[in-house]
This record gives sequence, structure tokens and C-alpha cells, in this order.
Amino acid sequence: MVDISELSYALDTFYFLVCGALVMWMAAGFAMLEAGLVRAKNTAEILTKNIVLFAIACTMYLLIGYYIMYSSDAGGFLPSLGFLLGDENTVDAVLAGGEDAPYYSARADFFFQVVFVATAMSIVSGAVAERMKLWAFLAFAVVMTAFIYPVSGYWTWGGGWLSELGFSDYAGSGIVHLAGAAAALSGVLILGPRRGKYGKDGAIYAIPGANLPLATLGTFILWLGWFGFNGGSELKVSDVTSANHMAQVLVNTNAAAAGGVLAALVLAKVLFRKADLTMALNGAIAGLVSITADPLSPSALSATLIGGLGGLLVVLSIISLDKLRLDDPVGAISAHGVAGIWGVLAVPLNNADATFGAQLIGIAGIFVWVFVASAIVWLIIKAVMGVRVSEEEEYEGVDLAECGLEAYPEFNVAKK
Amino acid sequence: MVDISELSYALDTFYFLVCGALVMWMAAGFAMLEAGLVRAKNTAEILTKNIVLFAIACTMYLLIGYYIMYSSDAGGFLPSLGFLLGDENTVDAVLAGGEDAPYYSARADFFFQVVFVATAMSIVSGAVAERMKLWAFLAFAVVMTAFIYPVSGYWTWGGGWLSELGFSDYAGSGIVHLAGAAAALSGVLILGPRRGKYGKDGAIYAIPGANLPLATLGTFILWLGWFGFNGGSELKVSDVTSANHMAQVLVNTNAAAAGGVLAALVLAKVLFRKADLTMALNGAIAGLVSITADPLSPSALSATLIGGLGGLLVVLSIISLDKLRLDDPVGAISAHGVAGIWGVLAVPLNNADATFGAQLIGIAGIFVWVFVASAIVWLIIKAVMGVRVSEEEEYEGVDLAECGLEAYPEFNVAKK
Amino acid sequence: MVDISELSYALDTFYFLVCGALVMWMAAGFAMLEAGLVRAKNTAEILTKNIVLFAIACTMYLLIGYYIMYSSDAGGFLPSLGFLLGDENTVDAVLAGGEDAPYYSARADFFFQVVFVATAMSIVSGAVAERMKLWAFLAFAVVMTAFIYPVSGYWTWGGGWLSELGFSDYAGSGIVHLAGAAAALSGVLILGPRRGKYGKDGAIYAIPGANLPLATLGTFILWLGWFGFNGGSELKVSDVTSANHMAQVLVNTNAAAAGGVLAALVLAKVLFRKADLTMALNGAIAGLVSITADPLSPSALSATLIGGLGGLLVVLSIISLDKLRLDDPVGAISAHGVAGIWGVLAVPLNNADATFGAQLIGIAGIFVWVFVASAIVWLIIKAVMGVRVSEEEEYEGVDLAECGLEAYPEFNVAKK
Repeated sequence: MVDISELSYALDTFYFLVCGALVMWMAAGFAMLEAGLVRAKNTAEILTKNIVLFAIACTMYLLIGYYIMYSSDAGGFLPSLGFLLGDENTVDAVLAGGEDAPYYSARADFFFQVVFVATAMSIVSGAVAERMKLWAFLAFAVVMTAFIYPVSGYWTWGGGWLSELGFSDYAGSGIVHLAGAAAALSGVLILGPRRGKYGKDGAIYAIPGANLPLATLGTFILWLGWFGFNGGSELKVSDVTSANHMAQVLVNTNAAAAGGVLAALVLAKVLFRKADLTMALNGAIAGLVSITADPLSPSALSATLIGGLGGLLVVLSIISLDKLRLDDPVGAISAHGVAGIWGVLAVPLNNADATFGAQLIGIAGIFVWVFVASAIVWLIIKAVMGVRVSEEEEYEGVDLAECGLEAYPEFNVAKK
Repeated sequence: MVDISELSYALDTFYFLVCGALVMWMAAGFAMLEAGLVRAKNTAEILTKNIVLFAIACTMYLLIGYYIMYSSDAGGFLPSLGFLLGDENTVDAVLAGGEDAPYYSARADFFFQVVFVATAMSIVSGAVAERMKLWAFLAFAVVMTAFIYPVSGYWTWGGGWLSELGFSDYAGSGIVHLAGAAAALSGVLILGPRRGKYGKDGAIYAIPGANLPLATLGTFILWLGWFGFNGGSELKVSDVTSANHMAQVLVNTNAAAAGGVLAALVLAKVLFRKADLTMALNGAIAGLVSITADPLSPSALSATLIGGLGGLLVVLSIISLDKLRLDDPVGAISAHGVAGIWGVLAVPLNNADATFGAQLIGIAGIFVWVFVASAIVWLIIKAVMGVRVSEEEEYEGVDLAECGLEAYPEFNVAKK
Repeated sequence: MVDISELSYALDTFYFLVCGALVMWMAAGFAMLEAGLVRAKNTAEILTKNIVLFAIACTMYLLIGYYIMYSSDAGGFLPSLGFLLGDENTVDAVLAGGEDAPYYSARADFFFQVVFVATAMSIVSGAVAERMKLWAFLAFAVVMTAFIYPVSGYWTWGGGWLSELGFSDYAGSGIVHLAGAAAALSGVLILGPRRGKYGKDGAIYAIPGANLPLATLGTFILWLGWFGFNGGSELKVSDVTSANHMAQVLVNTNAAAAGGVLAALVLAKVLFRKADLTMALNGAIAGLVSITADPLSPSALSATLIGGLGGLLVVLSIISLDKLRLDDPVGAISAHGVAGIWGVLAVPLNNADATFGAQLIGIAGIFVWVFVASAIVWLIIKAVMGVRVSEEEEYEGVDLAECGLEAYPEFNVAKK
């Protein structure tokens, strides 16, 4: 007969793997969302970026990143370097019990973490869409997933200085989403806007996404995947308290997404007189990002309101970034960065263990590190191979230039 | 070491949450199915409806609906009103054991139930597609998810009079699917058909869906999500009997969908001489709806046949509704209403605890309540703000009129 | 209080059902992948094939196939014939314990196996796309899923001669993927290439897929579903060793897919000077197929390399098959057949219990059986009803000829 410790270990491992699979599914969500929000002529390239960045993230995090993030012995600023996976837990260690006994598979932990780094990287691809060189982006993905994300990830989740300081970020509004947005912002600044996006005298031209069913599908995929993203971040399900926590987390995650949709829809209706679907989609994502820093402490009604405020912020941020001529074709910086900051700041509202001071330091620390480190990497890449396609390639579409094929070759598509 | 009661509680909670996540995924299925079956010019609006109705359902059911449906102390016709979520189960209550000890998280129960009400509401959006005002629809969604669905849901699942009468509806062929179809039917009657659908002398014009890959994807999503819908309705998995039941439910759910596809395909081939994909898709959904009232009692072969008869009925019903000039662009009334009635009536064939009398009363009760209540709400909305877009808006497409954008702005689409 | 044996049984059953649901989801993946890689005029038909073949597979495997594959009492070449599902496990049998006590639901086992046969069949549909008669294909699907696949499946997983010989194929690189590819190859040979694919003097004309976002979505779906395909093939999760195994399997499955993407992308870049998205997608699938014969024994780095070699092979194989004028519109024979063979051969590299001799015999046995049996069936179908649509139907597209509708009726599509 199986030992109850073994069964508990099995349930927690299975839970981690299911949640990890849901987070992997978010990669498909980002791919569809971004493919739906760019123009047809740039669709195959954004799809290529999305599947390849996932492959790069999985490989680089296996080779280096996971060790930087989780293998350090001591706290502080500097993580240690390591290489490849360590030993799996033995049956004896589990049966021995006690405080330090492993309660789920070390491999399951890696699986859950590796799909997180891919999420952070997916945020970048949309913001730099339609004008960046494919291989420049992939080179950045190597450094981001092997090094930049793991270092600031280590600061909190690996036991580093932000963790010691009391920075609280349950599933990563800051560590994952703000980090991705910071890398995206530095890329957007170095890259410049798409041709034709901004005219003279402050004119801003809308460049609508080519395929809104895809973008909607992507949003639903992200919504579903987020149940794994937040639900798995409880790190345990096998007792009453943990199970209750996971349930609360899923209820709140769902409620925040709903709040984000409704708030963004209504604000867009007020501002533009129309029920703007793309704003509703960004509202869902902003709601999800907002609750991610603490999906456990709030009541479901509070979660709805936190997500709702995220939905308002994303609409205002998208408008503001355009006024600043920061061209983010899919709204990633707004949905992940601005809503991520709001999410981190909202934690102390419901969780007495968190302080605004530590949260602000965490936001600043993550943003400065990722923004500066990313900028250095983008600039090196720019010097070595260039980051931007030629004017003609941008006009013709990066699909032909980079991928040598079209996403919709038989369809009669207006060249915009 | 963890207590076995705790571990059992954790497994049942986790099971509920996984099943709930799968049911949430059905929202994406309805969105894709409906987006694929309408014309291109009405696609963005149906996508907007689908994501916003989900957000409304989650919020209204949290605020009011869940309490109406499940918080009543006594049986009978009238549920009690309540507001927001109650207390979560304590560890002590679980460890105390006994008949009334909670065996899974109360929050997980809410999560599972809240995605059900969204399913019921999703059924409505397809039937009234391509000519209803967006905000009229959303207003209806508020009332449907806060009040209409919870009341009849309470009658059976909340311990009300249908439950006392012996009405048997395992996962909701009647409570969810027929209810959604009844609301849709009253909407369709008040709204009238799309312009150009029916001509003089009984002529019926086909209006093909613009994107059949999307519709097929939506059907596959629904098929997958249904494993959570029916599988979670066992409400327990943590002992041999419950686990066996869940397995039987998934086998039968899958078998019924397969039977529905095959029967609808063959009947369409016989009637139209062609393997009509849209009929095969509706056959799958009808098969799933048919088995939902009792996916546990039948053998897998019986389930195939029950689903198969559902597949025949949906084809005949779609043809018949067109002859009656009831314009349902996606076949929702047929797939959810007609197959839902068949599913409820099929229960006594395999389950000796059910009677045709109670099943017929249940069908009548649910249909009359939802149809009449919905009609009143639709008529009030019609009086206050109107339910139908203008002729010109309908011709130009509701995407531009309601959402101010197009689903496929770069594609050269024939205006039909 | 629940017995620990019951709880363990429940967890293993739930695990099987979750994994089975993920494998069912692969049917949607194949449907989207194939719908994206064919031309617009043949899209509705390939969608029809995909959903109907799934329904046929579920029904025929229930009626006959499952018994052929798993109900035989003795080993050897010939399985026994049977009909329908046997008894479910009793609570007493589980509580009795001992070596032979059932540890998960017999129905869950069926559910997991039935979605595997659908996978094998899905491989075939892509390879024969764009020129085969729909009903000829469906007739083949009946025989393949009722008989051809179950017989060679029995040889290994049912305890037949390959199992006795020591042939090792964890989740079916050979039993499922090579089998599907062998059936596809015999179909392609009998059917001949699409008109316009091969010209005089060895000219090969590219026929690009019409909708690459769909193809990418399909690949992501397959990637996700594969976690169930391989993860469920451990057949148990409820103790530390099994749970660790499942975690290792998911890590390796993911790593191999990532390796396949990267290797195929780079090789395509070297060969064609472009980052060919379709090759990256086929690289992912080839990586997944390659690791499927043993996702447990390799380290994650080895898994990346095994998948990577699969990614190289699929690119080279696609080029080679075109030179041989074997027209496989979606690359199924390369991704499932060639990578499947590589996967089976890679097992002894990491698993000392496997031998190259047994692996080679397994490959030969499965290939010869499925290829010859399929060829006989295809030839009988050809004689009785023909396998190929007329020249005119092929030119106009099989959608109109077979389904009487178009996949994208409003879109202005170039006839290619």
C-alpha cells in the first residue's frame, strides 16, 4: 500500500505539472494575440518569433537560467551560476519526513518555472513587432531568458535581496510582467515607431490588427493559462489550507479578468463612443496582470475592482504612450507594465504583510535592472547586426524579408 | 504528515478547479464557433459579445446569482436572495469528519458554478447574432446571469421544487442548455430574422459562415471543455466509485459527441448529397448536449446512440426552424434546445430513478420560466433602448456600428 | 474516512482522464495544422475529415479495436476479437490489494487509449489532403481504427510478440506515429501527387498553406496535448517514483520540442536563407515524435538533442520526399514517420534495457504490417469507389465537390 507522504507528493507534483502545462499554453495565447493585432504582412514573422522564443527560453533556462534563479546558497544581489538540472528527490528523502523533506518533484518545479520565463519573453515580442529584425530579436531572447530575467527573478523568488526586504509578488506582476514590459520598453525606444504610425503635428494613425478572432482567441487562451500561472504559484495543493488557497486564487484571477474587461469596455465606450473589442481584450489581460501580485488575499469583489482598475489603466496608458510616440503595436507595455506596477502596489491594500515601501523598491529594482540590462543588450545587438529592417522590407512586410513566405498567401490583402 | 481527510479534500478541490477551468474554456469555444458562423462584417461584434458576456456572467453571479441558486434554506419555488461569497471551510471542520463535513473547497464550488452560468449565456449570443444591438444584449446578459438562470437552476441543483419532484438532470441538458435555448428563442422571436434571410413565397436563403476553421476550432474547444462540464458534475472523484463514475462520464461524453458527428454527417449527406461540415459540427454539439442530462448511467454504446439521435434531431430542427422563419444563425436553439429536451427525456431509458413524468415537468418548468422571463426582459429592453440595429447598420455590418472596427480590416471581403 | 487505496486509485484515475483529455485536444491540433497548410479551396474538407475521423476512431475502437489491442489472453502474433467494454473495477477488488489489484479505472484506461488511435488516424489525413475523396478516406479510417492499428498496437502494448521480444516504445513513436505515417505513405503512393505539384524535368512547385496562424495554433495545441500523450503513458502517478517519472517525461517532452524548433529553424535558414515558419512548426512536431519512444530515460539536455536531430531530419526528409515526387502536403510522413523511426532507434542510447536489434525489428514489423495492410485496403477502396476526385473537382477544390460549401466564402481568395 502506498504511503500517505508518497500520495501527497504525487498530488502536489501532478498539480505542478498541470499548472505548468497551462502556463505553456499561454505561449499559444501570446502567439495568437500578437498575430491577430499586427498587419497581415507581418503575421508569419510574429508567429515565428513566438514559437522560436519559446524554444529558446526553454533551452537557455535549462542550460543556465534556472540555476541563476534558484540555486544560490546565499541571499543578496548576486546569484550563483550553475549548469543543468540537479538530482531528483529520492523516495527515502520523501519518506524521512520533517521540515525539509521534499514534497513534490524537483523536475516538476523546473517545468513550472521554465514556462514562466517564456511568458516574460513573449511580452517583448508584441511590442517590437512589425519592424524589428527577426534574428536580432532572437539574440535578445537568448540573453533575456538565460540571464536578465533569472537575475531579478532570483532577487525575490530565489531568496535574494528583494525577498529579504519583504517585497511581495505572489505570481509575478512585477517579476514576470513588469520585467517583460521593461525589456519591451527599452526595445521600443531603441527601435523607434513603425513607419506611418505618427505624422506631423502630433498626428497619430491607427494601424488596426488584421485578424481580431485570432486576437480574441489569444486572450481566452491567456485567461485559461493564467489559472495555471497563478494557481500553481501557491506551490502546494495537498492540504486543506493550500487547496482553499488555490481555489481562492482561481476565483480571484477570474474575477479580476472579468473586472478588467468590463472597465476597459465602458471606458472605451465613453472615450470613443464605441465598444472597442481590442480595448476589452487588453482589459482582460490588464485585469489578469493586476491580480497576479496577490490573487490570494483579496475577496472576489476586491479582485474584481483591482482588475477593473487595471482595465481603466490599460486604456489610459495605451492612449498616453501613443501621445509620447512610443509605438507598441499590441499594447504590451501598458497591459503588462502599467498594470503590473498597479498590481504590485495593490498588494498592501489587502495583505498586511506587505508594505508600500518594499513594493516601490521592488518595482524600481526590477524596472531599472531589466530596462538598463536590456538596453545594453539591444544596443550591442544594434551595433553588431542592426535591430531594424530596411524601409523597403518594412513596407513590403517582414514576412517576406525574414521568413520568405506569407501568412495568408492566397488571400487578397490590402497592403497597408 | 498530512491527514488523509485533508489529502482527499485537496484532491476533490483540485479536481473541481481543473474541471472548472475546462468549462471556462468553453467560453472560447462559443466565441470561435459563433465568430466562424457569422459573416465577416459581424465578427468583431460577436467576439465582443462573447468575452463581455463572460465577464458579466462572472460578476453578476458573484454579486447575486450564486446565492439565489445555492443559498436557500428551504425547498420550493422561491429562492432566497443573498450577496457575495460566504465563509471558506476550516481545517477543523474537515478534520471533524462525519456526514456533513465539507469535502472540497467552497470557493472551488463557486468557481465551477460560475463558469456554468456563462455557458448558458453563451448559447444566447449566437442565436441573436448579426442584427441585435450590442448593449441591449449585454443588458439582457445582466438579468439572465443574475436572476433568470439562477432561479431555475435553484429549482433542481439548489434543492427547489424540481429536485423534490425527482427531476433528474446530471450536468444540465435542461438546466443549462435548454435554459439558454429558451432565452435565445424568445430573443429571436422578438428580434425577427436577418434581412435577406427569408424571401417571398417561403424562399430561404443560406447565409454561410465566413470562417469555418474558426467554427471547427470552436467545436473542438467545446468538446474538450465538456469533459470538465460533465466530468465535474459528479462533484467528487476521491474514492473508487466516484473515480469510476468520472471515467464513465468522460467515455460517454466523448462517445455521444462522436455519435452526433456521424449521425448528422450521414443525414446531411442523404438530404443534401454533401458532407456538410457545419452540420457535422452541430452534430457534435447536439451529441454533447444530449448526453449531458445523464452521462453516467448509459453504456458507451448507448451513449453513442443517444448522441447519434441528437445529431439527427439537430439537422432536422435546423431545417424546421428555417421553415418556421425562426432565424438562428448558428443553430443554437436546435443544438442546445431540441437536443437538450431529447437529453432530458432520454434519462429514464437508462436510469431507473428517473421518470418521464418528472422529466417532462422539468422541461416544461424550465422552458416556460426562462422563455417568459426572458421575453419580459427583452420587451422591456426593446421599449427602453431598442433591440435591433438600423437597416443601414445591419447592411454595413454591426462591427462598424457597434465596435467601430472591423474583424478583418485588410482582407478583401465580399459584402454579403 | 476514505481508504488510502481508494484515494490512490482516484488520483491515478483522475490523472489518466486529464491526460486523455489533453490527447483528445491533439485532434484539434491536427485539424488546425492541416487546415492551415492546405489551400483555401480544400480547407472545409480537411476540417470535415478531421472531426469525422475522430468520431469514427472513437466509435470503431469502442466496438472492436480496444479488444483486439488489449483483451488477448496469450502473447504472439494474433490478437483475439472482442466487442465492447468489460466490467469496471469494484471497490472490493481495489481494497483487496495485492499485486493484481486494479489501481485505476478500467474506463479511464479506455478513454486514454481511444484518443491514441485517433492520433494515429489524424496523421493520415494531412498526407492525402487536397485530392482524395472524402468518403474513401472515411472508409479507410473505419478499417484503420478498428483493425490495422489495434493489431500492431497489440504486438507491443497488448503483450504480443514485439513486447516479448523486448521492443521498447514508451508512448508510441513507432506504435502510433510510424504506424500513422506508414498508412499515409501507402495512401500517397496509390493516390499520386496533387496536380501542379511536380513539373517536367524534376521541377517541384511549392504550394504554400493558406493560413499559417492556424498551422501555428495547431502546432501549439499538439505541443500541449503531447504532455498528456507522453505524461499519461507512465500509466501511474500516485507514488514518488511515478510522480518523478511523469515530471521528467514532461520536462523532456518540452525540451525535445524546443530542440526540434531550433534545429529545423537553423537548418532552414542555412538551406533557404530564410527563417521558414513551416519548417519550425514541423521541427516542433518532429522533436515531439522523436522523444516519444523514450521521454523518461534521457536527461533534459539529451532530450533537447534528440529532438534537435528530429528537427534536422524532418527538414531533410521533406526535401527528399519532394525529390522522390511523394507529395505530402503537410509533411506528415516526415514528421511522424522519419522522426518516429529516429525516436525508436534513439531508445537504446539512453536506456540499457533496449537493444538496437529489437528496435529495428519493431520498426520493420510495424511498418510492414501497417503499410501492406493499408495498401490492400486503399486498393480495395480504389476498386470499389475510387480514391481520387476528378481533375475538375481538384481544380475547383474539394470543398465544393465534397462538402458543398467553402471554408472562407466571403473572402476574395486567389484560385491556385
